[in-house]
Amino acid sequence: MSNRKVIAIDSMGGDNAPVAILKGLGQISESGVHFLIYGNESVLSQHKLYLKQVSYEIRHTDAVVSSEMDVMSLLKVGKNSSMGQAIQAVKSGEAMAVVSAGNTGLYMALAKIVLKTINGIDRPAIASILPGKCGRTVCLDLGANAECSVRNLTDFAILGEALARVVFSKENVSIALLNIGSENAKGNRLVKQTSEFLKQVMPNYVGFVEGNDITKGNVDVIVTDGFSGNVFLKTIEGTAKYIVSELKDALASSLMSRIGALLSLPALNQLKKKMDPRLYNGAILLGLNGVVVKSHGGTDDVGFANAVRFTMNVLSSNMFARINDQLEKCKPHFEIEEKL
Amino acid sequence: MSNRKVIAIDSMGGDNAPVAILKGLGQISESGVHFLIYGNESVLSQHKLYLKQVSYEIRHTDAVVSSEMDVMSLLKVGKNSSMGQAIQAVKSGEAMAVVSAGNTGLYMALAKIVLKTINGIDRPAIASILPGKCGRTVCLDLGANAECSVRNLTDFAILGEALARVVFSKENVSIALLNIGSENAKGNRLVKQTSEFLKQVMPNYVGFVEGNDITKGNVDVIVTDGFSGNVFLKTIEGTAKYIVSELKDALASSLMSRIGALLSLPALNQLKKKMDPRLYNGAILLGLNGVVVKSHGGTDDVGFANAVRFTMNVLSSNMFARINDQLEKCKPHFEIEEKL
Repeated sequence: MSNRKVIAIDSMGGDNAPVAILKGLGQISESGVHFLIYGNESVLSQHKLYLKQVSYEIRHTDAVVSSEMDVMSLLKVGKNSSMGQAIQAVKSGEAMAVVSAGNTGLYMALAKIVLKTINGIDRPAIASILPGKCGRTVCLDLGANAECSVRNLTDFAILGEALARVVFSKENVSIALLNIGSENAKGNRLVKQTSEFLKQVMPNYVGFVEGNDITKGNVDVIVTDGFSGNVFLKTIEGTAKYIVSELKDALASSLMSRIGALLSLPALNQLKKKMDPRLYNGAILLGLNGVVVKSHGGTDDVGFANAVRFTMNVLSSNMFARINDQLEKCKPHFEIEEKL
Repeated sequence: MSNRKVIAIDSMGGDNAPVAILKGLGQISESGVHFLIYGNESVLSQHKLYLKQVSYEIRHTDAVVSSEMDVMSLLKVGKNSSMGQAIQAVKSGEAMAVVSAGNTGLYMALAKIVLKTINGIDRPAIASILPGKCGRTVCLDLGANAECSVRNLTDFAILGEALARVVFSKENVSIALLNIGSENAKGNRLVKQTSEFLKQVMPNYVGFVEGNDITKGNVDVIVTDGFSGNVFLKTIEGTAKYIVSELKDALASSLMSRIGALLSLPALNQLKKKMDPRLYNGAILLGLNGVVVKSHGGTDDVGFANAVRFTMNVLSSNMFARINDQLEKCKPHFEIEEKL
């Protein structure tokens, strides 16, 4: 019982909620996990059949947030929504983590209000682990902070380093800053100043990388502001979709190529599986006092199940405690940085 | 003779200069074009055989710029370099356009000093026409301005609109602003303010698009600052390379898939041709008093030839004069904008 993972689930967030959420939970065959499912009980009870293999309890919530609300009412109502209550379960210690496919901005705002940021961290960031030719890369911030300071990017570098150490199971992880050229003179003031600072405080900082390095996987952590990060994340998604659709058209263009595609089908399907964005679903809101995982809003049951598995891995690896350890070790860095 | 296009070529710029440059020029079989080739005569004379089918003259230049130079000496020496002299040929009226694969920053700086910006334009931008599912999109700025103001982005919208009208041969082109969400509340101050302003002054402004819209081709023009623009351009490049390499690996993974790939080869080759980045080589430095085309620095002869063909198309379509016309029509916009 003591090793049982308890995960709070916001069942009402995302484009395909609650069906995709419950169907996704139904795919979690691992034992030792218990879900606290927050949402409208009468709606959820219609779909209980998906959950017959899993351990769960439903926690009824009434409040529904709407995009028409102003920020203040959004946050007020939000606290009582399925998302807000699921976050609250982490705060109270009932759950070890929370997963939602709901609105990112609201999720971040509520999580920040309820859980607070880790001591020494000014603003949390959204981090994801992206696949690349030579390996995976922890990328952050992917959209939480459209406007960043040197201090913010430094926080992200420290958080990203800690996450990468756990995820990649090694101590020496390389950290890079996204820029538009590898020379020192390139880029805007923000990246130039941050680079100078990181050189002083982070021994594992390796300098600038560019957009084409993201899918190379030649560094462990790529740090950027939330505007550029969100742009490149969505650009990768769009480019992959475009190429795959062009490939499908090409393979369907003649009888010969259709026969060829048929023969290559097992290999192509394996590639499709490897490249499936649902496989990489699950971003983490890093820098908060709790494990807060965000599923893509448009994902289906398979994608949501992967976000839940990602959360379980985070809990298994004791990552959160290790991040805190790393932050403790990094405190001297923070102190130098405070002098900025 | 009067219709002959004279294009100044910087033969010493780019990773594979001068061989790739001269080989590229040798592939231009179209008649009615004459090249003024700037570079070291003794070096160039060794590779003259590539040029036997084309009309050209070599203009000797001695000066060589180096990345170790400080900005001032770089610009001073740069003016006498093959790049600087080629730009000068446009200024003097000897050439109608200039093409270089050299350093982008230096190219932009020299072109701005020598040719000056179009009256009413504060800073030039790098624009490229990117392929997408439903059509091509004019994207700018792709890296000239790492830091932008509302005024700069408005300039880019007007320049991009003019370019798209010519390239896509239609008057009503849709213009969008790159952001990290489509809602008004999303994004940083810069995009929010620019969006409000564009709504007032540009009837064809359609609002925000996101990173995954770039390869959809559902708008004609995407405007962004040079930092995000360069990031997404290089991200597209990197993602495409990554997927193609994974595809190759998958198709080579078994005997069956290798046979399948062989049968699909004509279709796959056609796709490869369609997706070849060398096909889209050729960005234009927009907002200058002259046609200034930038080839990718790492391109080969095929890519450089395409940059030259792009330049010839620009000259054929009389685009530059039409941009000036559009800017004339847009002057009232500028005047409103001046009040900002």
